[in-house]
Amino acid sequence: MNTPKGFLFSAVEAAIKKPGRKDLALIFSEREAVISGMFTKNNVKAAPVKLNMKWIESGRGQAIIVNSGNANACTGKQGMKDAVEIAEMTAKTLGIKTDRVYVCSTGVIGMPMPMERIRSKITELADNLGRRTINDVAAAIMTTDTFPKAISKVMKIDGKAITISGVCKGAGMICPNMATMLCFIVTDANIDKSALDKALKNAVQKSFNRITIDGDMSTNDTVLIMANGLAGNALIKKNSKEFNRFSDAVSDMTYELSKMIVKDGEGATKLVEIEVKNAKNERDAEKGAFAIANSLLVKTAIYGNDANWGRIMAALGYSGIAIKEGMIDIFLNGLKIVCKGMGTGRDKEANEKLKNKEINIVVDLHLRKGAAKVLTCDLTEDYVKINAEYRT
Amino acid sequence: MNTPKGFLFSAVEAAIKKPGRKDLALIFSEREAVISGMFTKNNVKAAPVKLNMKWIESGRGQAIIVNSGNANACTGKQGMKDAVEIAEMTAKTLGIKTDRVYVCSTGVIGMPMPMERIRSKITELADNLGRRTINDVAAAIMTTDTFPKAISKVMKIDGKAITISGVCKGAGMICPNMATMLCFIVTDANIDKSALDKALKNAVQKSFNRITIDGDMSTNDTVLIMANGLAGNALIKKNSKEFNRFSDAVSDMTYELSKMIVKDGEGATKLVEIEVKNAKNERDAEKGAFAIANSLLVKTAIYGNDANWGRIMAALGYSGIAIKEGMIDIFLNGLKIVCKGMGTGRDKEANEKLKNKEINIVVDLHLRKGAAKVLTCDLTEDYVKINAEYRT
Repeated sequence: MNTPKGFLFSAVEAAIKKPGRKDLALIFSEREAVISGMFTKNNVKAAPVKLNMKWIESGRGQAIIVNSGNANACTGKQGMKDAVEIAEMTAKTLGIKTDRVYVCSTGVIGMPMPMERIRSKITELADNLGRRTINDVAAAIMTTDTFPKAISKVMKIDGKAITISGVCKGAGMICPNMATMLCFIVTDANIDKSALDKALKNAVQKSFNRITIDGDMSTNDTVLIMANGLAGNALIKKNSKEFNRFSDAVSDMTYELSKMIVKDGEGATKLVEIEVKNAKNERDAEKGAFAIANSLLVKTAIYGNDANWGRIMAALGYSGIAIKEGMIDIFLNGLKIVCKGMGTGRDKEANEKLKNKEINIVVDLHLRKGAAKVLTCDLTEDYVKINAEYRT
Repeated sequence: MNTPKGFLFSAVEAAIKKPGRKDLALIFSEREAVISGMFTKNNVKAAPVKLNMKWIESGRGQAIIVNSGNANACTGKQGMKDAVEIAEMTAKTLGIKTDRVYVCSTGVIGMPMPMERIRSKITELADNLGRRTINDVAAAIMTTDTFPKAISKVMKIDGKAITISGVCKGAGMICPNMATMLCFIVTDANIDKSALDKALKNAVQKSFNRITIDGDMSTNDTVLIMANGLAGNALIKKNSKEFNRFSDAVSDMTYELSKMIVKDGEGATKLVEIEVKNAKNERDAEKGAFAIANSLLVKTAIYGNDANWGRIMAALGYSGIAIKEGMIDIFLNGLKIVCKGMGTGRDKEANEKLKNKEINIVVDLHLRKGAAKVLTCDLTEDYVKINAEYRT
């Protein structure tokens, strides 16, 4: 996989998770980069999230160190001390400033960080840095994920080849506002800080903030994007043509990554895209789509190949958005199953359509122009199994 | 079971559901009664719900006819015609006014009512009326319920014996605002209409509106209470000592019935009571308790005997209520598992406590005086199984 100039990657086994799995990873930019970030809106925030939120005020970053297996959340003052120590040790080993090192954690909440094991691995982590080891990072940040998630894009801006690479992890606790979701994007584009902020915000709004697996939101969600400028293009500024192309590329990337997250939802067998259109406004469309996407009854019906559209109608009804029952049309993979609020009698065909691995539900409210798409997955016995046994 | 004076009950097989199960029931008062009702807040309302909401404006009622197997929701104009016809036929057969007959339906959404089968059974339904057949009604309104839910209470008011009896059904789609939930309460108390309204509102607020199984809300929820005055007590008026005793008795009854509903939640193995106390206000307490009660991660952890209190903290965090992380205490069946926002290290003992069939979680926010209790159940593979296969 292509990776941007000047970025190095590494991952090691620190025995934070089960033995035999990489669980500590490092992303390093040879040159200080501009950085933008978005963080969980959960009022209970993990220590490293609080640390990153403070350090990102400078707009500068050079390294991201991340562990899986322990979330360092609900760990009090010791948790914050541990996060700071990890940043300090990493900075010292790499020869950079402490507040340019961003620390991320994901895993079980409320357990003290196994600092001995982490301390002993930071030198190895720095020694292993390489240009082509981004997939190791993607693997090391997995928790209940079943496959690593990484992609790269190359584009030309100002005659220069610009590379954008992204890794992320998802699985459980995925809901609006980026539940246990980590995503790190790196690029060698030369872009100014406010433009980078805007590109990230645009991207997250229609990708990570529009996916849901179980409606839970984690204490650790973090999306970071670092741009080190080594591609040598003229500085990208907000509202330019180049900005729009760069921003679209980042949005495409986060949309692809968020799709991977949903596909890999705990126990999921199907990827489900729910679109509500012609709602009163975009907010209503989003709210309606989320009500459907979060309905356990809808999700289990999709799993069971049962085109029980009444559950979709019920979810629309309790979402609280503006609807006229007698005007609602619903399509399932292109098949009209509800016309003007009533069934079209094509449930058997619809049940067949549900056997696809990719399900597309379109709800047309026939009111105004509001539209929104939300990605989710079905709900299966395996989701329950995975989450009943997570710590045991 | 004792039943109030002047009320008769009956249930028959109308083959709306599977053969061999009663699915059409009637409750009849020999004398016209005062009636109060509360209905689903879902914007998609079943036809009979709309009909009842119109007729209850008179404050008078004499019969309730109810079927399971078909919700008569999303059935357009024909659905409303069918509901009216059921009321008319019942009224004619019983020799009472049409708009004194309340019609309720529960079951699959979006299918036409099997009117031929219903029409042919109304005479039999009336012929079977008896004083002691209230349990048949409770059985006939079941959908995925596994046991019938009925209770009676006798109390003295004004020297007269007053009986209150209630039946309900629940199972799936149970969430605030009384998701697919039907409850019929009958009493021979002599009470004025506004007092009856208030007693019902008090009762529902802290019982049916504080239970959740899967967060879904149905199109058909209905609670009705009829009081025919045949006990002969002096009229109960609002804000009297007698009113308070009557109101408390109704509240106790609905609390017991809502407990039965949660115990019988689809696939549930445990009854879970979640109390949030010392919140900023009651609204916050309720919101926090619901966030915990609706968290799939909390519900699966309880099922798996895993005292993963981090998931409770995360749910509190994303509920949006006022919290101070470092002040939160959490108790599990009396065992303190979180102290000042951090684990007490007693997870193993806590896992043992989770093997009980009744789980009690208390969250103390140490802010002000707001408190609320919510009832829920665990989430199991069987919930998924039941709902994936509901129509197949």
